[in-house]
This record gives sequence, C-alpha cells and structure tokens, in this order.
Amino acid sequence: MKTEAAALRAVQGAAMRPRGELTDTLAGLMREGGADAVPDVARECARHALLDWACVALAGMREPAVRIMARLHDPLWEPCGGLVPFTGPSAPWAVLVNGTAGHALDYDDVNSRMHGHPSVPVVPAALAASALRGCSGRQLLDALVVGHEAEALVGEQFGGAHYANGFHATGTIGTIGAAAAAAHVLGLSDAQARHALGLAATQAAGLKCMFGTMAKPLHAGKAAMNGLWAARLAQQGFTAAADGIEGGQGFAATQCAGLREAPVVSERWAVQDTLYKYHAACYLTHSAIEALRALLARTRLAPEDVERLDVHVAPGHDSVCNIAAPATGLQVKFSLRHLMAMVAHGHDTADLDAYTDALACDAGLVRWRERVQVRFEHLPSAKGARVELHAHGGAVHVHYADVGVPREDLPAQWQALVAKGRSITRGVLAPGRFDALVRCIEGLEWQTDLLSLHEAITT
Amino acid sequence: MKTEAAALRAVQGAAMRPRGELTDTLAGLMREGGADAVPDVARECARHALLDWACVALAGMREPAVRIMARLHDPLWEPCGGLVPFTGPSAPWAVLVNGTAGHALDYDDVNSRMHGHPSVPVVPAALAASALRGCSGRQLLDALVVGHEAEALVGEQFGGAHYANGFHATGTIGTIGAAAAAAHVLGLSDAQARHALGLAATQAAGLKCMFGTMAKPLHAGKAAMNGLWAARLAQQGFTAAADGIEGGQGFAATQCAGLREAPVVSERWAVQDTLYKYHAACYLTHSAIEALRALLARTRLAPEDVERLDVHVAPGHDSVCNIAAPATGLQVKFSLRHLMAMVAHGHDTADLDAYTDALACDAGLVRWRERVQVRFEHLPSAKGARVELHAHGGAVHVHYADVGVPREDLPAQWQALVAKGRSITRGVLAPGRFDALVRCIEGLEWQTDLLSLHEAITT
Repeated sequence: MKTEAAALRAVQGAAMRPRGELTDTLAGLMREGGADAVPDVARECARHALLDWACVALAGMREPAVRIMARLHDPLWEPCGGLVPFTGPSAPWAVLVNGTAGHALDYDDVNSRMHGHPSVPVVPAALAASALRGCSGRQLLDALVVGHEAEALVGEQFGGAHYANGFHATGTIGTIGAAAAAAHVLGLSDAQARHALGLAATQAAGLKCMFGTMAKPLHAGKAAMNGLWAARLAQQGFTAAADGIEGGQGFAATQCAGLREAPVVSERWAVQDTLYKYHAACYLTHSAIEALRALLARTRLAPEDVERLDVHVAPGHDSVCNIAAPATGLQVKFSLRHLMAMVAHGHDTADLDAYTDALACDAGLVRWRERVQVRFEHLPSAKGARVELHAHGGAVHVHYADVGVPREDLPAQWQALVAKGRSITRGVLAPGRFDALVRCIEGLEWQTDLLSLHEAITT
Repeated sequence: MKTEAAALRAVQGAAMRPRGELTDTLAGLMREGGADAVPDVARECARHALLDWACVALAGMREPAVRIMARLHDPLWEPCGGLVPFTGPSAPWAVLVNGTAGHALDYDDVNSRMHGHPSVPVVPAALAASALRGCSGRQLLDALVVGHEAEALVGEQFGGAHYANGFHATGTIGTIGAAAAAAHVLGLSDAQARHALGLAATQAAGLKCMFGTMAKPLHAGKAAMNGLWAARLAQQGFTAAADGIEGGQGFAATQCAGLREAPVVSERWAVQDTLYKYHAACYLTHSAIEALRALLARTRLAPEDVERLDVHVAPGHDSVCNIAAPATGLQVKFSLRHLMAMVAHGHDTADLDAYTDALACDAGLVRWRERVQVRFEHLPSAKGARVELHAHGGAVHVHYADVGVPREDLPAQWQALVAKGRSITRGVLAPGRFDALVRCIEGLEWQTDLLSLHEAITT
C-alpha cells in the first residue's frame, strides 16, 4: 500500500531524499535574498510592482468575482474604497480576496520568465506576513524581489511545457513565489524554507481552461493564500517532502515532464524584467498604442492631419485583436483600428471606464478608424508593432514599439505607473488618497514599519 | 496573449464549450442524489462512513499536524476532546483542521474505485454545508452517498494513471467529492453544480511524493475546504469553465492524459464498496490479522497451543510489512510476525496507543513470533492472506481473509466500527460521550436537524 511504503521509509530511518538544485537555490534565495544581495535597482523595480499591484487591486475590488468572494466571509461586506485589512484572524481570507482583486481586471503585471503574472500572488502574501511580523519597508521590497525571482527561477526551469500543458502559471508557480516572499518576511530557517517550498508545491493548482471565467482571478488569490500558509505552517514545524518541486513525482515531474536540464542564467533580477499593462485593452494592442502615441508626441499632428495609418503586427494578432468594426465597449478592447482612433483623439486608453458602448459608436472615431489598415508581417518580436503614419501632403512617419521589452528608463516607468494608477483608482479612492498612496510607496525604503502602507491601501 | 484569447471568446459571444458526459453525470448526481435515488443500503453504509470518520478525526486531533494547523488560526487552541465547530465565520478553517485530523492517523476508510480515502474530504465539507443550511439527517447521509459516488465516478474514469502519475487522489479527486457533497446539501441548481465542479477541478491538488510527511493529511483538509468553497462560490454566482474536468486542458487532460473511453458501470453504490481499517498497523497486515483472529475464534486455541504459524501473502508484502524483529512500536506496525503474536495473545490491534517500544520488546511476544513464518506466493488477491496454524499434536487449521473485499454483513461491520471507534477515542472523549455519539449516528436518518450530531462531535 502506498501510504505504508512512505511510513516504512520513516521506520527504516531512510535518509531524506536527495535535495535538488532548484530547491537549494530557492531556499538560499529565501534566506539570503535580503542581506546585501538585492541591488538598489531591483528594489526600485519592486516599488513599481507594489504601486501597480495596489492600484489594480483597489480598482479590482469593484468586480463581481471579488464581491462574491468577500461576501462569502462577511455577508455584510460592501466595497469601501480599500482592500480587506491584512490583520487579525481573517488574514488568510484577506489574502484570498485581495489576491483575487489584483487579477480580476487582468490589468496586472506580467513576466515572461515565469510565464505569468508575478505580483498578484506575491504581494498579498508578503503584506500579510508583514502584518504578522513587523518588518521595514526595505524588507518588504526585498521580499517582493525574492518572490519575483523565485517565480522566474521555477518558470525558467519548467520551460514553456508547463503552460502549454494547460497549467495557469500565475496560480501554480505563483504559489511558490508567494511562499518565498512570505518566508523571507517571516525569517524562515533553511530547513523551514524547504518545507515551505514542498507545501507550496503540493498545493499549487490552476487550469488554463478557466480563462474567461471568475476562476482565473481566483487562481491568483488561492496562490497567494496557499503560499502564505506554506510559509506559516513550515515556520510552526509542519513538514513536507523537501524536494517536492524537482523530486520524483514532484511538482515538475507531474506537471511539466520534469525540469529543463540546466537553469537559465540571467544577470538581471527577474523583477527588472517585469512588464506593465498601461491600457485597459488586449495586451497585443499595446505596442501599436505606444508606437502611435510616440509618433503623435514627436510630430504633434492632429487627427485631421492624418491621411492613412498602417499598423504592422505579427500574424497572430489577427485572431485576437483585429475586430474591424467593434459594436460594443468590450469589442473595442480587441480592435486595433478603433484603439488607434482613440489614441489619435487623445482618449485615455488606461481608463477602465472609457470602454463604453457609446465609445464604440462615436461617429468621429468610427469615421477616423476607416483610415487605419492592419497589416500582418513577421516582426522582430511577436509582441511588437510598427506604425506608419501617412500625413496629408505626403510625409510618412514610422515608429516601432515592443511592449515585450522591459523599460530601462525607470523614472519614466514610475511616472507612467502613477498616471495609470491615478486613472484606474479615480472613483475608487477618496480625493487625496491616491497621492498619499504614491508618497507612501515612494518613500517605502526608508520606513521602519508598514503601518502607513497598510493604512493607505486598506482604509 | 493567452488571457485575451479567452476574453475574445466572450466578446465574440462564443458558445459555452461543449459539456462532457462526466460533468453531466456528476451534476445530475449532485441534484438528484437525494430524491428517491439513494437506496436504504447506501444510506446505511454512509452511516458507517460517518461514524468511522468521526472517531478517526476525534483521535487524530491529538496529532502534531493538527495542532499546528489549529494554532495557526487560534494561537490559544488546545485539544479539548472535540473537533473544531463547523459554524461561524471560521467554518472554512474548521473544515481544513477537521479534514486534516481525519487523515492524520492514516486510519480512515479507503475505496479502490476512487484510488483513495473517500470520507475525509467529503464528510467535513458536508457537515460545514449542513451548518450553513439546516438539513435533516437523511439529507446529510444522502450527501455522503453523493460524495463517495462522485469520487468513484471520477476515479474510475481517471483510471490508475492519475495515481500512478504522482497525484494523491484523496487530495485531487477528493476535492470533487467534497464539492459534490456540499452542493447536494446546499441545493445547488444544475448550472451552479457545473460551476462548482469546475471550481473544484481547478483547485484540486496534492502530490503523492508528500507521503510520510504532514502534507499528506493536509491534502485531505484542503480538498474538503476547497470543495466546500467551490460549492459556496458557485451558489453565489461565481463562474468557472463548465467542462473543467473532462474538457480541453482540463483536470483529466492535464493530470491523467484524459479520461478512459467508457465510464465503468457498477450496480453497487460506491459507498457500499468503501473499506475500513480496523488495525492501527500497515494495511497489508490486516488480512493476516483477520485470518488469525477468525482461526482463534473458531478453534479456541491458546497461544501455547500453537506450534507453528505460516502466513502466506503476496510477494509485494515483503518490502512493506515484513520486519522480522521489530525494535520499536512503529516498526511493529510493519511486522507481520510480531502482529501475529499480538493477536495470539489477545492484544487490541486497533488501539493507537498499543504500539509502544515496550510492546516490541515484550519477552513473551518476542518468543512467540519465532513460531511465525512469512511465506510469499501469488494469492487470489494482492491484499489477501492465508494463515496456516499448526497446533501441537499435529492439527492444522487454515483460514483465508481478504480485507480488499467489502463486507456484506453490515450489522457486523457496524459492530466492528463501534469497537474500533471505542478503542481509538478512549482517552479523547469524556466517559459516555462515545456512546452518545454512536446513538446519535445510529438514529441519524430520523433526525430533522443535525444539532445533536454537531454537538456530539465538537464539544
């Protein structure tokens, strides 16, 4: 019998199964990530991830999935312009609700090294851990760096097969990231960290076939909560197989036919490669939006100056975001032509509330989008877009953008995230609350505790 | 991008993916299971499963895994001779702790049609649901029948591949069973039941490589809690893919290379095929224990009347439960020879506290076990045992037992479960409490509410 075979190993005093390289690496990261290992630039990037997560989650609190989830615990719950407080006996529940809120709009950050959304499992787990064990702003940022890094290390060694097999990496690999971040905040020992990784591996779940349903954001909330539990249980002496990730019949073997042979070596911390969504539309429209915005800023052309606009994108875009004549606000999100018209007319593509059915029928935009042609070709990046603007009079202006490449200009990225956050939290946060949140996160590295941060996001 | 592809389907008004046969069957079972569908014999078996679950969980509350789990939520928690109450805002937590308690001793029921332990995810989820929505004793028993049946339906169509691939069916398939039982108690509509099944499928987790650690019972607790959540979320309008079990990249496709082509047709309800452990030792020793007990009862021989005892078992036992000269109480659990000596001397093999190091060194038992020989041969069942007792004077008595075959004599099974329950809850329940619990479960079918049951197990 299965269970007795395992018990027998204990009886016979069998040695712990050999520890794998990946768990070794992760446990070391969870323990050491904080010391002097994390460079300032990574912490700066973690600050960006935190701001973006907070704003997207605050905006996401209005979504039906989040309301249902919050009311399951507290039938009287009403959206109040803040996240559920991370303190008290309901902390795991808060992590679940806030984690779901962060992903409910699908507007949160992405990292191709993990094949998913890195912050949404990691940040709520780290915040809940910080509410349990006081920590400084710098420690929290380090924990976020550790969480992103753990996800990337696992995602890279799992390779594309895990995602291709049908697993939603944000839910599965995200559980490991959440455990790693929480373990770092809680100060787990090396042995505890290994058990936490095993407990995360055996709870990791989430199927890609749930995309398009409320279960998708649920995966993120569950990953955050399960990761937090993994770290807290391990801290109290709860045990798990110490090679649950890469060992025999472990996470990798069961869900992606084993690890790639060699770990990927990157000189950049994963959090530096985290990408942000700045437009509340399909991600494959973002490069074209950015390219046209850059062209218009450079040329200062007005909508009526444009005779024709050609948008060159990879062929994969055709089945995803090439609705030629959208009739509803939701369809606009998947219409390169209509989005180009919005950019030309100065509409705020970040605004969640912009995508109304009236917008889809706006006569000026409908007329203008007739000037736009979408053309397919193989570009340097499958996510890139080259926009050719033909002005009246014959001048042609061209710009190529690729939102798949991390921004190197961090001050510009911060400004863009602030603008996005302001746009999406309008109507959610009381006046002045957004500015206070930005100030708090700007100065986080110098704060000895996180009381102001928790206050800024939960009240 | 992945996420947008799903959103696009919604945009284009794509029809719901086709509903699979298994989800259809399960949803029908969850809805109709109660009406007149469940025969009395199945409800009788559910009563047995409930008694066994309650006693094993009550005894399991003393285990370290459960203490750690319970104190994570309430640092002041102390074992008090009862389960954590299923009521109030902490109900999901109670399900997690009580679910873990039910599996912490690995002494709970098994069902080979699900390839796992059927009751431990199902009973706590059904009890928590019953605390939310008053139901009768008969409805609770029906829900347990539904839960066992759902697990068997999934387990049979998943085939052996799921377990062989490294998944702990009690954790994974158990989530479906827990959702089905809770959905039945909550009275979910057909559409809600389908979403609940999707939500269960996408949360299902648990790796077999965790056997021998505290993570194994955690799987059972998580399955119970996740299944309860699946049903409660679906009841409130939370959505999931309606073919998350058998659809493309769903539970079956990702975790057992798809369903077997045809469902297994059984004329017996799964709960009738549920087997019980009656000895706190390795399951592979149970047939030999039962065979020797039967022989001794028949022949009324005393230990000193026995000249030699031959135990014939399948070769697979050798590496599992054939420790010839155990030195510790734990090793005794894996020693056919020492267990035979215990039976011959009338020791209570059900008693969790019997397996001490002193027992392993008891001079009388050590001398007697020298008369026992374990012999390997291919028997009609891999779990069976044939015991040959050679008495002084030349008489030979033979008995074959197979604990892998469900008992048909239900009154005898009930008496055996009562005896086991009494033995393992001694020292846990206050005097008289066990008898009250048995009486309560005996009369459950005629109770209009479950207040006495909840009181009997939690206070």
